[in-house]
Amino acid sequence: MVATDPKAGRKFIYRFDEGNAQMRDLLGGKGANLCEMASLGLPVPPGFVITTKTCKAYYENGHHVPDGLWDEVRAHLREVEEAIGKGFGDPANPLLVSVRSGAKMSMPGMMDSVLNLGLNDATTDGFAKLTDDRRFALDSYRRFIQLFSKVALSVSSEPFEQVLSEIKKREGAESDADLDVPALEEVVKRFKEIANERSEVPFPMDPWKQLKMAVTAVFRSWNSARAIAYRDYHGIPHDLYTAANVMAMVFGNSGWDSGTGVCFTRSPSTGEAALYGEYLSNAQGEDVVSGARTPKPIAALQDDDPAIYEELSGIARKLEQHYNDAQDIEFTVEHGKLYMLQTRSAKRNAIAAVRMAVEMAGEGLIDKETALQRVPANDLTQLLLPRFDEDAKSKAEEDKRLLGRGLNASPGAATGIVVFKSADVAKAIENGNDVILVRPETSPDDMPGILQAVAVLTSRGGITSHAAVVTRGLGKPAVVGCSDVFVDPEHHEMSADGTIVKEGDVISVDGFTGEVFVGQIDTVDPDVGSNTHLTQLLDWANETKRLGIRANADTPPDAQQALDFGAQGIGLCRTEHMFFHPERLPHVREMLMHARDYYRIEQEIEALRTELEQADREARADIEAKLRETESTLENSEGAKAFRSALDKLAEYQQADFRDILRVMDGKPVVIRLLDAPLHEFLPPTEELIEAVATLRATNENAAELAEKEDLLRQAQALKEQNPMMGHRGCRLGLSYPGVYEMQVRAIVRAAIDLVNEGLDPRPEVMIPLVMDTSELQALNPRLQAVAAEYASAVQTDARPGAPGRSIPFGTMIELPRAALTADRIAPEVRFFSFGSNDLTQMTFGFSRDDAEEKFLSEYVDRGILAANPFANLDEEGVGQLIRIAVEKGKRANSELELGLCGEHGGDPQSIDFCHRAGLSYVSCSPMRIPIARLAAAQAALGSSAQGGGRPAERDV
Amino acid sequence: MVATDPKAGRKFIYRFDEGNAQMRDLLGGKGANLCEMASLGLPVPPGFVITTKTCKAYYENGHHVPDGLWDEVRAHLREVEEAIGKGFGDPANPLLVSVRSGAKMSMPGMMDSVLNLGLNDATTDGFAKLTDDRRFALDSYRRFIQLFSKVALSVSSEPFEQVLSEIKKREGAESDADLDVPALEEVVKRFKEIANERSEVPFPMDPWKQLKMAVTAVFRSWNSARAIAYRDYHGIPHDLYTAANVMAMVFGNSGWDSGTGVCFTRSPSTGEAALYGEYLSNAQGEDVVSGARTPKPIAALQDDDPAIYEELSGIARKLEQHYNDAQDIEFTVEHGKLYMLQTRSAKRNAIAAVRMAVEMAGEGLIDKETALQRVPANDLTQLLLPRFDEDAKSKAEEDKRLLGRGLNASPGAATGIVVFKSADVAKAIENGNDVILVRPETSPDDMPGILQAVAVLTSRGGITSHAAVVTRGLGKPAVVGCSDVFVDPEHHEMSADGTIVKEGDVISVDGFTGEVFVGQIDTVDPDVGSNTHLTQLLDWANETKRLGIRANADTPPDAQQALDFGAQGIGLCRTEHMFFHPERLPHVREMLMHARDYYRIEQEIEALRTELEQADREARADIEAKLRETESTLENSEGAKAFRSALDKLAEYQQADFRDILRVMDGKPVVIRLLDAPLHEFLPPTEELIEAVATLRATNENAAELAEKEDLLRQAQALKEQNPMMGHRGCRLGLSYPGVYEMQVRAIVRAAIDLVNEGLDPRPEVMIPLVMDTSELQALNPRLQAVAAEYASAVQTDARPGAPGRSIPFGTMIELPRAALTADRIAPEVRFFSFGSNDLTQMTFGFSRDDAEEKFLSEYVDRGILAANPFANLDEEGVGQLIRIAVEKGKRANSELELGLCGEHGGDPQSIDFCHRAGLSYVSCSPMRIPIARLAAAQAALGSSAQGGGRPAERDV
Repeated sequence: MVATDPKAGRKFIYRFDEGNAQMRDLLGGKGANLCEMASLGLPVPPGFVITTKTCKAYYENGHHVPDGLWDEVRAHLREVEEAIGKGFGDPANPLLVSVRSGAKMSMPGMMDSVLNLGLNDATTDGFAKLTDDRRFALDSYRRFIQLFSKVALSVSSEPFEQVLSEIKKREGAESDADLDVPALEEVVKRFKEIANERSEVPFPMDPWKQLKMAVTAVFRSWNSARAIAYRDYHGIPHDLYTAANVMAMVFGNSGWDSGTGVCFTRSPSTGEAALYGEYLSNAQGEDVVSGARTPKPIAALQDDDPAIYEELSGIARKLEQHYNDAQDIEFTVEHGKLYMLQTRSAKRNAIAAVRMAVEMAGEGLIDKETALQRVPANDLTQLLLPRFDEDAKSKAEEDKRLLGRGLNASPGAATGIVVFKSADVAKAIENGNDVILVRPETSPDDMPGILQAVAVLTSRGGITSHAAVVTRGLGKPAVVGCSDVFVDPEHHEMSADGTIVKEGDVISVDGFTGEVFVGQIDTVDPDVGSNTHLTQLLDWANETKRLGIRANADTPPDAQQALDFGAQGIGLCRTEHMFFHPERLPHVREMLMHARDYYRIEQEIEALRTELEQADREARADIEAKLRETESTLENSEGAKAFRSALDKLAEYQQADFRDILRVMDGKPVVIRLLDAPLHEFLPPTEELIEAVATLRATNENAAELAEKEDLLRQAQALKEQNPMMGHRGCRLGLSYPGVYEMQVRAIVRAAIDLVNEGLDPRPEVMIPLVMDTSELQALNPRLQAVAAEYASAVQTDARPGAPGRSIPFGTMIELPRAALTADRIAPEVRFFSFGSNDLTQMTFGFSRDDAEEKFLSEYVDRGILAANPFANLDEEGVGQLIRIAVEKGKRANSELELGLCGEHGGDPQSIDFCHRAGLSYVSCSPMRIPIARLAAAQAALGSSAQGGGRPAERDV
Repeated sequence: MVATDPKAGRKFIYRFDEGNAQMRDLLGGKGANLCEMASLGLPVPPGFVITTKTCKAYYENGHHVPDGLWDEVRAHLREVEEAIGKGFGDPANPLLVSVRSGAKMSMPGMMDSVLNLGLNDATTDGFAKLTDDRRFALDSYRRFIQLFSKVALSVSSEPFEQVLSEIKKREGAESDADLDVPALEEVVKRFKEIANERSEVPFPMDPWKQLKMAVTAVFRSWNSARAIAYRDYHGIPHDLYTAANVMAMVFGNSGWDSGTGVCFTRSPSTGEAALYGEYLSNAQGEDVVSGARTPKPIAALQDDDPAIYEELSGIARKLEQHYNDAQDIEFTVEHGKLYMLQTRSAKRNAIAAVRMAVEMAGEGLIDKETALQRVPANDLTQLLLPRFDEDAKSKAEEDKRLLGRGLNASPGAATGIVVFKSADVAKAIENGNDVILVRPETSPDDMPGILQAVAVLTSRGGITSHAAVVTRGLGKPAVVGCSDVFVDPEHHEMSADGTIVKEGDVISVDGFTGEVFVGQIDTVDPDVGSNTHLTQLLDWANETKRLGIRANADTPPDAQQALDFGAQGIGLCRTEHMFFHPERLPHVREMLMHARDYYRIEQEIEALRTELEQADREARADIEAKLRETESTLENSEGAKAFRSALDKLAEYQQADFRDILRVMDGKPVVIRLLDAPLHEFLPPTEELIEAVATLRATNENAAELAEKEDLLRQAQALKEQNPMMGHRGCRLGLSYPGVYEMQVRAIVRAAIDLVNEGLDPRPEVMIPLVMDTSELQALNPRLQAVAAEYASAVQTDARPGAPGRSIPFGTMIELPRAALTADRIAPEVRFFSFGSNDLTQMTFGFSRDDAEEKFLSEYVDRGILAANPFANLDEEGVGQLIRIAVEKGKRANSELELGLCGEHGGDPQSIDFCHRAGLSYVSCSPMRIPIARLAAAQAALGSSAQGGGRPAERDV
């Protein structure tokens, strides 16, 4: 047993004016803040803090407080009595105190507190006289008995509540406030009986005993089951311990010269710099909460009691200047004297956070760097998506149209008609409806429906479920795991608590809050450009950040949006999406059908040429003849012609695609990734075809359709792979079918030449995907760069500084572990690396993203086997280690190498922080997340970790 | 232009007695060896070497030989004239010479040589008189004209051959040897005309001019197209250049006191230490080759010319002692004088290599270390597999039963009846036949057939095709890519050059040579134990190697074979193979059907227990009731019962499985890997089910079967994954369905206890697969180790040194990049790492092994994008880098950590060498490859690289 050293560190208690905000370790968050206010000379009711060390000693001494503690408490209590002029246990003028828990870290609701301590039969009488309100005194007494019994005597609240409702029923009282004095007298009597019956020790009438029991109960509550579970869950150490704050009670209900209120130093919803909150005269906090009386807006205090209002305003200013942040404060006025009961950093929504940060910087309260760190980057989402009109939503709630609450999986707000099967979405849309897809849960089969719907609602699944991940990727609102509703797709309806919603009914889904409403709710569109505060903040972010921010964008509208949001280029333009266009798919299939044969013949020609080179003079004739014949086959066979013609057709489309995007991004880099999709994605799913063929065969009816389906099936099966994610895709395709990549590079070159001829400044870059070794680039680049050379010879050198000149830079994705590990050999072949963090995560973990989330990944996150979904937050330990290896090796081998990241992590603040620390030069993310990425990059540059940084320091509540 | 320094390095030429074997850079391989023999005092015909530097200078001087070269040649030629007593160009006594190319590296057939140089009209007459054989002189002359014209004058052989066959036809001569002197006179005349007509310069009659032109032609042949292509392919530098060897011709056909022969100092097929070869009196090498006369065995020379035989034997001994290796020598006797024309390391088969190495070590010629390095480890395969009886095979060839030749993809020899569809194999086997599966190519769908067949033949596919890889893994013979045969599975037949083989016909497949025969050929089984030389060599390997060698074995027979071959334990016992047993599959499916529900309920119980802990005293009753109810569901529901009963059934099987293997491996470690297979592998393929269901639905006939198939399809689809390789398998399953792993560990424990009770010493170890983070082990190990603790409490501590004591060691596979990268955090949780190099290769490259070989990997290897198939030879640069990282981090975090490798690379000498260098403690491979691994491990310990080491140093030919 470790006893507290009897000499050193024997100070168990700090008066409020002895401590300060820095002493959170010793005094806990709440205690430290009370001390800070006291030290600032603000009117805090007198009191003291029993230190966390004392609590620690309590546990180390086998649940005994250290010797001498109570003497010290007694001495400090005497000082409180003197300061406030009341006596603890004095029936004539009783001092009442609160005993509150408070650890270094906020653990809201996890530990215990006791109010109105000091009340017993005698002091209640005295208190009644003093306040001239017996009803209030009795009410305070019965509340104290119940709370004390629960906290210190382990008596459940249940029997107290039963007695209370029994008497209320008898008296015909609707609320507690309707009970009169005799009724309350009975309540108090019965409560004391319950406490004495149910507890192992009698309810203490001695205030001093009450205090000792309350303090040790607070200490014990540190190790309650729920507190331990909470700390385990949040990773809070178990050896911090709690302080116990003892403070004189002050009463805002002491008459009409008293009152109580809560206010923010700035509006938590708009950020406007004015006191914002409410107050109630002759009242306690409880009266505000109970709703018995309606509080007034704080502004009214200006007329009601100008002196108090002025004092309060001054304190608010002082606190803001002291804490350099907006505060959420509680105050009480007792007989015209203002007391501050609490101050803490004000919670705020994103709009308010932005405005507060910018305006406080304008006022000189904080500098720009601090302003940038004040807004959690992810919260900007709230400013970028349509939201439900708040009034419309309140109204809907009043009208009982709230159907249920689920997980706010993907932000945004949408209204539409309900459709229960993905296959039915298209038809509903044809009829001109916005559709909300409602499913028990979604699977990859639901993708077509999800793509067409405006929002998704599921009754099952967590925050990493298929629906959640997919919709976040698409930027559409989703509520998942809404277990309040029962979804029955077979009968095309869902129900929640008696309400039935049928297919075609209108609902509204709030992806910010997880709420689902019946009927329509009006939305308001964000107008980012007109938000001058946001514009200002993001301008500061641009001055501060070192990472470039580019967008993942495949279409001109996406590119335009990215530009509007401040993208400095396109970091990933995916070309396979262009291939999926229904108009082009037939050409893609035509091309695929003939590609293998085409390149088999081409290889024969290659072999014949080599043979010819080495042949004797006389043998040449034969070989030459065969060569000519084979060349002619490649030139004239139907298959070869079809192959070339399909490629030509695709080239036209691609040239137009690239021209449009490059025009939008004039003067900015556009990194175009060559085809990466597994080929079978361009054919109908094998399983569908098997089913169709089997059915057609069995019914033996439509021979033509059967033949067609059989043909497609043959192709699909030839292209099918066991594990397509690790299959024949990316540069592996480019090597098998060189014409495809050549066509793409040619389309890029021609698009760029078109624009140069228009006087524009296109800056395309070519990116090769899925490289595992430098040899792949060595095999591909010569042919492709020969095509790209057409550009050099067609355009003039651009003399503008920083202009890309006449060559189109070639780079590669680093998305396979082997590429990262051999980056030193790859780097000399390219001008840039772009980390494909999605695939790199898949390969490093051996997780198939298409499967993992559904099968086990959510479970892994739920059980804490993984701290986070590595597809959402870049796994610094594993994937990040590979990125660091590649950065180090790549830079060593090619000091000019440009380094970027273009996985989905490019829009995640925590991952952006890593990219900054790893020394990348840019990240690329979806257009919607550009503002978030800009702010996150600035925060990274300021060295605030993405976890803590960008959020106001948390304080005890 | 860089001219040769006129002073330094001006020595263009070395006499044979001036150089030695170490001067390969300067003199080329052939020249250096001739010098070496001359320096040893052996009778080499006089001659000299024009250095590679001279050739280099030739190129650097724009195809001009350096000044002074010809003077030096002339001086050396004079020395040759003196030594041999003939005159170059002297019609009375002409000296003839050969001019041969010879680079540092052997490039057989790629460069040019000229023989009989010095012949012209005049010297041919003199030569005829001298040899008293005008026919022979004319024949030599016409051969010289043709060869010189080709090499030095770029005249094709075609017109010469035409003239020759025209005259042969006219004369009625069957072979060249049938032409008489007048006919040959005409041939010579016509040959000279052709040479003069077709060449740009006249055919030179001046021997000196001949010599100069021959030397420069040899120099030029270094940069012929085919030589350049050859060097590119073999990675030979282009700046080595060739020497030109000028040597006096000697003639074994100078009379009956002359002759020529070729012999090995030891038998290249058995290794027996005796001269082995043949000779022919009064003949040149050509006479032996042409088959006109039959040579005698070398032993006969002992009677024919005892003096020469004795001299030759002495030289052979001297050469062996000098080179410390068996030699392949060429000699000529001219008028009773023996000349050595060549010596080189003797090629040998594996049987001979082993015997030679062991016996030479016994004789003290080499030490044991050298003996170990003399045998290419992979070649031991030849000693370990059944082979066709050589006589039987020769007979089959004579009988024209050779059907075709393909790629020798997997060694071994087998005879069986032909079956063309995998589905038909089982039936043929039931009828008591050995089956050879013949397919155009195989896919994973053919696995059942391949598993049951004794050998596989395909007409398509390369050495890394599906059939090749799978059969090598299974140790069954296979010939793939046998394009000589056309396979027509639809008509159940194949054909080759008119021969038709139908289903049920017998064929024989030689996986060593790639030959396919019609009908049966007797095989001979290897008897490894009785090969005392091999046993000796492997004993030496055990003394030398530092790596432990374990086996991948899942059955008692496999374990026994491994033990017979010297395995020191089992490094990988796969448990999923045990689950696939048809008798057990129903239980596995039953278990799967209920597992998800079972664990959902178990989790509910867990949640209720937590809730209960934190609940108020009063709330407990409700929660307790719900808990009891849920516990009862888990106890009594049909599904839960079925789940537990299926597990129990499997536990029984597994306990017996483990007991049998542990019994065989008594006293040796057996690493048992817990279940790793993706679950859907235990159900029929989804596509098959879809087809069946669609057909049944369309035909609307068998409702019961439809219901059954639909049920299976539902299950299969629930378990289906897009990329199963990266899916819900390994420890991910163990975490989802903890009962499965617990059942397996319990079965291991009980099996071990059974054996301890029998007085045996079982040493099971438990291995967790597919770990990506230490948290997975932290979640799994407590439950599993609690089960394992049963062992500790059941058995006595074993006091024998090195005994495993009472605990069962737990370890993990390192087979995901992330596991390797975070090995420092994983290591403290385990006793051992075992690198799963197959999966690690898949993830590091992003290659799906099931797909890659067929789709693009063979192409990658063919085109040199990959130097080797990384699934065959461990990729040291990428995968090896991860292994080294894991070794370093793992050892740092846990110095007691044991490190092994159990992928297929464990049987590959090159990969074994890496494992040795990376500091692993053992490798584990298929039982068949244990001897190879032992030898390779010894070679690794001796520091010979697996590429070059273990092979006799290559010499110029």
